[in-house]
Amino acid sequence: MRLKSQTNGKVPGLAVVLVGSRKDSETYVRSKKKACKEVGIISLEENLPVDSSEEEVLNIVRKFNDDPSVHGILVQLPLPKHMNEERVLAAISVEKDVDGFHPLNIGKLAMQGRTPLFVPCTPRGCIELLLRSNVEIKGKRAVVIGRSNIVGTPAAMLLQRNQATVTVVHSYTPNPAEITREADIVIAAVGVAHLVRGDWIKPGAVVIDVGINPIEDPSAKKGYRLVGDVCFKEAAMKASAITPVPGGVGPMTIAMLLRNTLDSAKRAYGLLD
Amino acid sequence: MRLKSQTNGKVPGLAVVLVGSRKDSETYVRSKKKACKEVGIISLEENLPVDSSEEEVLNIVRKFNDDPSVHGILVQLPLPKHMNEERVLAAISVEKDVDGFHPLNIGKLAMQGRTPLFVPCTPRGCIELLLRSNVEIKGKRAVVIGRSNIVGTPAAMLLQRNQATVTVVHSYTPNPAEITREADIVIAAVGVAHLVRGDWIKPGAVVIDVGINPIEDPSAKKGYRLVGDVCFKEAAMKASAITPVPGGVGPMTIAMLLRNTLDSAKRAYGLLD
Repeated sequence: MRLKSQTNGKVPGLAVVLVGSRKDSETYVRSKKKACKEVGIISLEENLPVDSSEEEVLNIVRKFNDDPSVHGILVQLPLPKHMNEERVLAAISVEKDVDGFHPLNIGKLAMQGRTPLFVPCTPRGCIELLLRSNVEIKGKRAVVIGRSNIVGTPAAMLLQRNQATVTVVHSYTPNPAEITREADIVIAAVGVAHLVRGDWIKPGAVVIDVGINPIEDPSAKKGYRLVGDVCFKEAAMKASAITPVPGGVGPMTIAMLLRNTLDSAKRAYGLLD
Repeated sequence: MRLKSQTNGKVPGLAVVLVGSRKDSETYVRSKKKACKEVGIISLEENLPVDSSEEEVLNIVRKFNDDPSVHGILVQLPLPKHMNEERVLAAISVEKDVDGFHPLNIGKLAMQGRTPLFVPCTPRGCIELLLRSNVEIKGKRAVVIGRSNIVGTPAAMLLQRNQATVTVVHSYTPNPAEITREADIVIAAVGVAHLVRGDWIKPGAVVIDVGINPIEDPSAKKGYRLVGDVCFKEAAMKASAITPVPGGVGPMTIAMLLRNTLDSAKRAYGLLD
């Protein structure tokens, strides 16, 4: 562990705040804690009941802001409806915003000549997949389907920073299939099972599927299985490369969260170049 | 003057910081001061010599930050090369950032469910032109040519907020003409005289030309004249509507600056809904 030897045994710390007991959120948090353990990041967790007040959540966030052993703070979304997500996320110190959702980080990500402290994990994972697979991004046409704050919008910014010509397709786009068919690189992040069919894909395009949608499946043990936003079977016949669901982007998201946390710890210890 | 009567005679104040004596910057500042005078906004100006230190500029900005009679602070760009533009702009209080260039404002502009305190003046002027001309934006394809922090990037965000499907064309786009030809709405903000030719424009498209480029013209008094990024003569034959240069977007930019300053003053006096 290089960091540990450079910091007199100090290691990165990630704090996770979970409100309520949504099954999917609990699963995510468990995966994140497991991944932390594997790489030697200390993980702290605060689990609040679903009827907690916003002030209670804010107090937890503030406690972690003040704790020098914590380098990343992650509030698992979605929060219960009675809480103001914007206010809770804004309370996270921008230096510990390892999710990269703070508007200051998003703004810097959008701007030329600026560098955000953190890049949101899922979009960063998508780009990392492209780069590690030697997909040329520069000069290519990219289409991002979906414009969420968490995936679509930052993914479009990252593709553009890598010199792609980017179009964002969303619910008001009248002809999403036609536009997507122009793309050399497609990132689907819209949360609709099998929305993207084979005829949306230009032959040879590279497809990254961020969706994780449960669909009924009587043959499955739980009665459902998880599928992406892309109809994999059809798209795989057209694409030169495509990510599966589950197993494609998901693990990358967690890997990038660990990397953001490590970067944050290095920054705190004055070890980042 | 409604505001004046609601605030016991207090009026909005705009502070302009000009470093050096670039002819174009001086012209802009003069226009802005004149416009302020016309509408009853007090304008303050600090004019520093080109060899001032960054610290001197920062001190002026801080002085205006602390002055309750100042509701907007504008540092005229470009700054001399020895200054760090990012640092100077970041010093402006986000509550007085009437140019809307602060990354926090840009981030909120990019994000769903967030509202920036200020929207950058030129892009806001472009959208205002479209809206006032009853151009439908929702569901249309828009192409923004150029991705500057000041115009292209925020213009793309605004078009998307208005439910257009937006593509940003830039220097690494191999086929800008072809892509621009797909657009119902074109915003050209790249700073290259007459880059956009007639055959870039889809018949019936709406064209907003943000460029202001000097080109040699022996017949002009000064030896040059100002032209846009769009070859007006050619594009006007294709477009259903097009803005001229000079006279199109320029006056809108100043109008939006006044509006941002007025909004800021109202916010300071607790009068904004």
